[in-house]
Amino acid sequence: MGKILVESVGEVKEYVDICDYAVGLSRMIGGPILPSERPGHALIEQWNPVGLVGIIMAFNFPVAVYGWNNAIAMICGNVCLWKGAPTTSLISVAVTKIIAKVLEDNKLPGAICSLTCGGADIGTAMAKDEQVNLLSFTGSTQVGKQVTLMVQERSGRSLLELGGNNATIAFEDADLSLVVPLALFAVVGTAGQSKQSVSMFLGAVEEAKKEGGTVVYGGKVMDRPGNYAELTIVTGLAHDASIAHTETFAPILYVFKFKNEEEVFAWNNEVKQGLSSSIFTKDLGRIFRWLGPKGSDCGIVNVNIPTSRAEIGGALGGEKHTGGGRESGSDAWKHYMRRSTCTINYSEDLPLAQGIKFQ
Amino acid sequence: MGKILVESVGEVKEYVDICDYAVGLSRMIGGPILPSERPGHALIEQWNPVGLVGIIMAFNFPVAVYGWNNAIAMICGNVCLWKGAPTTSLISVAVTKIIAKVLEDNKLPGAICSLTCGGADIGTAMAKDEQVNLLSFTGSTQVGKQVTLMVQERSGRSLLELGGNNATIAFEDADLSLVVPLALFAVVGTAGQSKQSVSMFLGAVEEAKKEGGTVVYGGKVMDRPGNYAELTIVTGLAHDASIAHTETFAPILYVFKFKNEEEVFAWNNEVKQGLSSSIFTKDLGRIFRWLGPKGSDCGIVNVNIPTSRAEIGGALGGEKHTGGGRESGSDAWKHYMRRSTCTINYSEDLPLAQGIKFQ
Amino acid sequence: MGKILVESVGEVKEYVDICDYAVGLSRMIGGPILPSERPGHALIEQWNPVGLVGIIMAFNFPVAVYGWNNAIAMICGNVCLWKGAPTTSLISVAVTKIIAKVLEDNKLPGAICSLTCGGADIGTAMAKDEQVNLLSFTGSTQVGKQVTLMVQERSGRSLLELGGNNATIAFEDADLSLVVPLALFAVVGTAGQSKQSVSMFLGAVEEAKKEGGTVVYGGKVMDRPGNYAELTIVTGLAHDASIAHTETFAPILYVFKFKNEEEVFAWNNEVKQGLSSSIFTKDLGRIFRWLGPKGSDCGIVNVNIPTSRAEIGGALGGEKHTGGGRESGSDAWKHYMRRSTCTINYSEDLPLAQGIKFQ
Amino acid sequence: MGKILVESVGEVKEYVDICDYAVGLSRMIGGPILPSERPGHALIEQWNPVGLVGIIMAFNFPVAVYGWNNAIAMICGNVCLWKGAPTTSLISVAVTKIIAKVLEDNKLPGAICSLTCGGADIGTAMAKDEQVNLLSFTGSTQVGKQVTLMVQERSGRSLLELGGNNATIAFEDADLSLVVPLALFAVVGTAGQSKQSVSMFLGAVEEAKKEGGTVVYGGKVMDRPGNYAELTIVTGLAHDASIAHTETFAPILYVFKFKNEEEVFAWNNEVKQGLSSSIFTKDLGRIFRWLGPKGSDCGIVNVNIPTSRAEIGGALGGEKHTGGGRESGSDAWKHYMRRSTCTINYSEDLPLAQGIKFQ
Repeated sequence: MGKILVESVGEVKEYVDICDYAVGLSRMIGGPILPSERPGHALIEQWNPVGLVGIIMAFNFPVAVYGWNNAIAMICGNVCLWKGAPTTSLISVAVTKIIAKVLEDNKLPGAICSLTCGGADIGTAMAKDEQVNLLSFTGSTQVGKQVTLMVQERSGRSLLELGGNNATIAFEDADLSLVVPLALFAVVGTAGQSKQSVSMFLGAVEEAKKEGGTVVYGGKVMDRPGNYAELTIVTGLAHDASIAHTETFAPILYVFKFKNEEEVFAWNNEVKQGLSSSIFTKDLGRIFRWLGPKGSDCGIVNVNIPTSRAEIGGALGGEKHTGGGRESGSDAWKHYMRRSTCTINYSEDLPLAQGIKFQ
Repeated sequence: MGKILVESVGEVKEYVDICDYAVGLSRMIGGPILPSERPGHALIEQWNPVGLVGIIMAFNFPVAVYGWNNAIAMICGNVCLWKGAPTTSLISVAVTKIIAKVLEDNKLPGAICSLTCGGADIGTAMAKDEQVNLLSFTGSTQVGKQVTLMVQERSGRSLLELGGNNATIAFEDADLSLVVPLALFAVVGTAGQSKQSVSMFLGAVEEAKKEGGTVVYGGKVMDRPGNYAELTIVTGLAHDASIAHTETFAPILYVFKFKNEEEVFAWNNEVKQGLSSSIFTKDLGRIFRWLGPKGSDCGIVNVNIPTSRAEIGGALGGEKHTGGGRESGSDAWKHYMRRSTCTINYSEDLPLAQGIKFQ
Repeated sequence: MGKILVESVGEVKEYVDICDYAVGLSRMIGGPILPSERPGHALIEQWNPVGLVGIIMAFNFPVAVYGWNNAIAMICGNVCLWKGAPTTSLISVAVTKIIAKVLEDNKLPGAICSLTCGGADIGTAMAKDEQVNLLSFTGSTQVGKQVTLMVQERSGRSLLELGGNNATIAFEDADLSLVVPLALFAVVGTAGQSKQSVSMFLGAVEEAKKEGGTVVYGGKVMDRPGNYAELTIVTGLAHDASIAHTETFAPILYVFKFKNEEEVFAWNNEVKQGLSSSIFTKDLGRIFRWLGPKGSDCGIVNVNIPTSRAEIGGALGGEKHTGGGRESGSDAWKHYMRRSTCTINYSEDLPLAQGIKFQ
Repeated sequence: MGKILVESVGEVKEYVDICDYAVGLSRMIGGPILPSERPGHALIEQWNPVGLVGIIMAFNFPVAVYGWNNAIAMICGNVCLWKGAPTTSLISVAVTKIIAKVLEDNKLPGAICSLTCGGADIGTAMAKDEQVNLLSFTGSTQVGKQVTLMVQERSGRSLLELGGNNATIAFEDADLSLVVPLALFAVVGTAGQSKQSVSMFLGAVEEAKKEGGTVVYGGKVMDRPGNYAELTIVTGLAHDASIAHTETFAPILYVFKFKNEEEVFAWNNEVKQGLSSSIFTKDLGRIFRWLGPKGSDCGIVNVNIPTSRAEIGGALGGEKHTGGGRESGSDAWKHYMRRSTCTINYSEDLPLAQGIKFQ
């Protein structure tokens, strides 16, 4: 998919790390035993695998995102059916072969982690199939919504990791010599990939100009083999300019000036997506307000570190149009299991008239 | 709504109990602080209120279900907008007035817990309104699906508690002198309400006969003031008879004979809903298999106790067409909050090249 | 015990608050169900009450500290035997009578929470008695050590809340107009009590002078009814002056100048006790270092708030000579229970050769 | 130490498993962020390493027990100082060399996990040394008590895993063809080691006879190279015979007849130690009573599985004279860390008169 080598190695490392994490987790997942209000009864929260986890992914993280889903899904006791992006099929095949070998070396059928290659038709079939107990979808907000509506139509479960498009906010007490490279890095870190991206880039630059923006740096496609866009900085747009609210997968940084904290937190939150956001500041009160109920409404809320940073121990995912799902660490495993609240009467007498009664 | 007095008192008691529970919980909710893989960084999982919780409810539990939602939503820091069933408006008004008084006695605006009365049009408006951050809906599977599709259309959040229709299973080692009254109690406990229910009852009896069932007990409307149906027992239906898979809110018990555990667990799970289910047995292995991955796929999985029993300390709700939501205890509070995974760099140097990078 | 009214009301409020907290907690305590590595086995962590909790207390918090122990101990299923300070027996009797009434109103024997009045002989008897399953002791470091050695001698359990004597540290970026009153408040908040304290106060002032300190404010007993010492500020002592390391229960503030963060964190930690400590600063990095492995080694670590502040939702207690126990919130309930790790084989075959084997 | 090969391989496998577990755990440990009752404040439970963990061990599990301590201690951020049993020094040296290599391969000093060889004098020095922040001791109840008193004398922390000596109870509904080999296996699994054990064995057989017991099987030392005692069964002793309450590390099974559940549960609990215990039964009510407040008071409470079985995901250790410590899984990591309850005021104003005040 045109990713630089160091990024690609990083993706594989992610997979290894999540496997390490998942092995530990495999001895910890489970619900609490709760005190029962009735003598002679046990109250247990039992978690079981959902069954079959369908995993549909975008091209931009063809290995790591599968790893996050695959490792957690497996230690929860599930089997997986993976559909990678049509443009990264070779990666999907290679990863599946490695997993199959590990499974078979351990006397388990390789088909526990199956692969299907194809386009939107296969994705639709997975979304509509009642046998897919959980559909984990990573991709655009637009397609994600269609997918979840199909799954919801059959009262199924989905886990969505859709687009992100949130702000990096530098306050006056931020160290600009650090903020600037980091903000740029977040922008370019995963951009610069395929031909489609180039046309998306050019369209975005054009649209930004139309909406009143000024290209103060870059703005052109690079004249060399491959598909590389220049790192581009646009100023002068209104905070609610439609192009600035559109995720473009291109190395464009829109720069805005703001008056105060309240205003800029509101700008961050007015974006439909809710994936990741950062502030750069040294102000203690501001940091905690940023983390609090009136702060960022994103799933990733960073401080003095770019929007693109996270760790597998945390739950990864976002709110609002980003879809609400969480992958990787913390209690993300709960997505991959179903819960039963179990009351066991182990006494000899079964009293009639106690407790909640509902139908 | 035609509920007997002792049941009504029970509903109010539920509300009081969940308030006690929620007061304790209010000092416990929150995420973990996780170890960061980067020196000089803190990794925190922060939970914040979602904002406005809309609560739409059915007529059959006009007080307790609101209590479960209202108490947990409030201690999470939210405000509530409640639409009760159109047939139980007086109850909704009375409850709202009590809450408003408590709030105002504590110098808080009563409007924190607001009420709106009305029918499907109001419900639709709430489902479509972006200001309703979480829509908690309790009601039929059919309406629930419409509601969640409307909420999903705007990438909102819903919490669904829809219909249930699962089995009580008595094995040969069960004490029948206990099972029979308990199974009947589960059937009649909350039935016997309004005129509509009577016609639903008569329709179901008719349909059961049409599909090959025999009414071995009851089957008629009672000749006395109010709307009372006889407790009715039907035998001879196929396990997959469509009437047996239809929730009727009527006191009809469908009785089936099964050959073995595997068969009857499958019959329990072939029902579209996944709310509540029970077995009566003394067999240790059977009990744990019932709780396990090949056992009941319901949200409530009981043993030697009717399907209608639960406790507020547990998470209440069901899988599949029941909607997947959880109310009341355990980690149900997470529905009412949004989570941010926060990385704070508190060191002076901001390293460029570590960790997960994603856009 | 000579406490001012507002403080006394505060103690009773603490008791009420912890009761509210404990009622909620009573539906939450319990261990996890863990995944078993063996098919057909369940792995459960079960918590049970320890039985009888003995509670021995100091005079300075004659109500609240009992409340923290009593409320949590009871919801864990224990019975309590309380010995208050000999100087506050009337308070102990009054509190016990109130609890007994509540218990009896709920048809439980009042003796569930029993009281014994007396001195060190009774305390010794409780420490040595095998029937006291947990001995919770709040008091001086010196007596606490004797108590725990007696309990340890019979392989019993103790929970210790012993003395504290740690620092309030004001950095150059702290708002001094706030730090000074707060630091003084922490010093005087619970001091000013009985005749013994007065002689302790005078002894401490004398000792401070002997070790090279200068009394720059106060230093005398007040000439009015009751036993009041002047608020006293001493400067010029070495950081390791023995008087500064001695807990005196008197309103004396020892003031030291420090060169840098490293030095002052070390001074805070060189004190034998490890109860509570504070810094006042706006520096983000400093705050997190203060919370971290090289920061304060106390059980209470505050920032911009006096050492005397805590909340019942947190675990209260201290490290080192303070004894290591935790009361009140978080997982402090585990002190009051015993844990069993339970493996249940529910399959029909009992495999011989798996897993850990130990004797 | 004379352990059979398969057992030795099992010990090494334990070490590998706990390392896998600990790697996962390393991204999960940490306290909760709790809601603060004060606006503008954050309430955080922070866990930090204790520093230096001293590990003193017995000869019978020369590898696995170190692994449980070492792996968890390290991921908590501690350094370790290990003293193995004097009779298994070569094992200690070999294990330490392997760990040192792994550390150095990862550019960490091998001394993070140091070894000291020696006898009781070294152990005493470690127990008395204030630099040893936590002393983890596995060994006899007698030595363990001396050790913990030494550590307590300096207000230090200890983690004790001392002797066990509890019952395997077979009820009338147990499958005897399974119980008998399993009970024997638990007895012989780790016995049969060094010369001292042989004399302990002979002494125990003699004592059992003196107290009225009959040797119905075995009772002699085997006539072959090495130090092997016959598997021995003794009947006819009183339930409280002193020899039956003495841990002998020898393959002797004392068999008792009991009248009913209440009696035999009491016999299990009258033993001073509280490590591990089992029942064999199919009775649901009995199983839950065995797990409950009136059941076994041991740290390991098994059902239909020998006393010697546990899994690393659970917390391993015992109550009463066994010492109360917990190693390996669940929340055993908390032993290896110190906790601070932190309140951070991040607002600009510092209110004076709220909350708990204590000194």
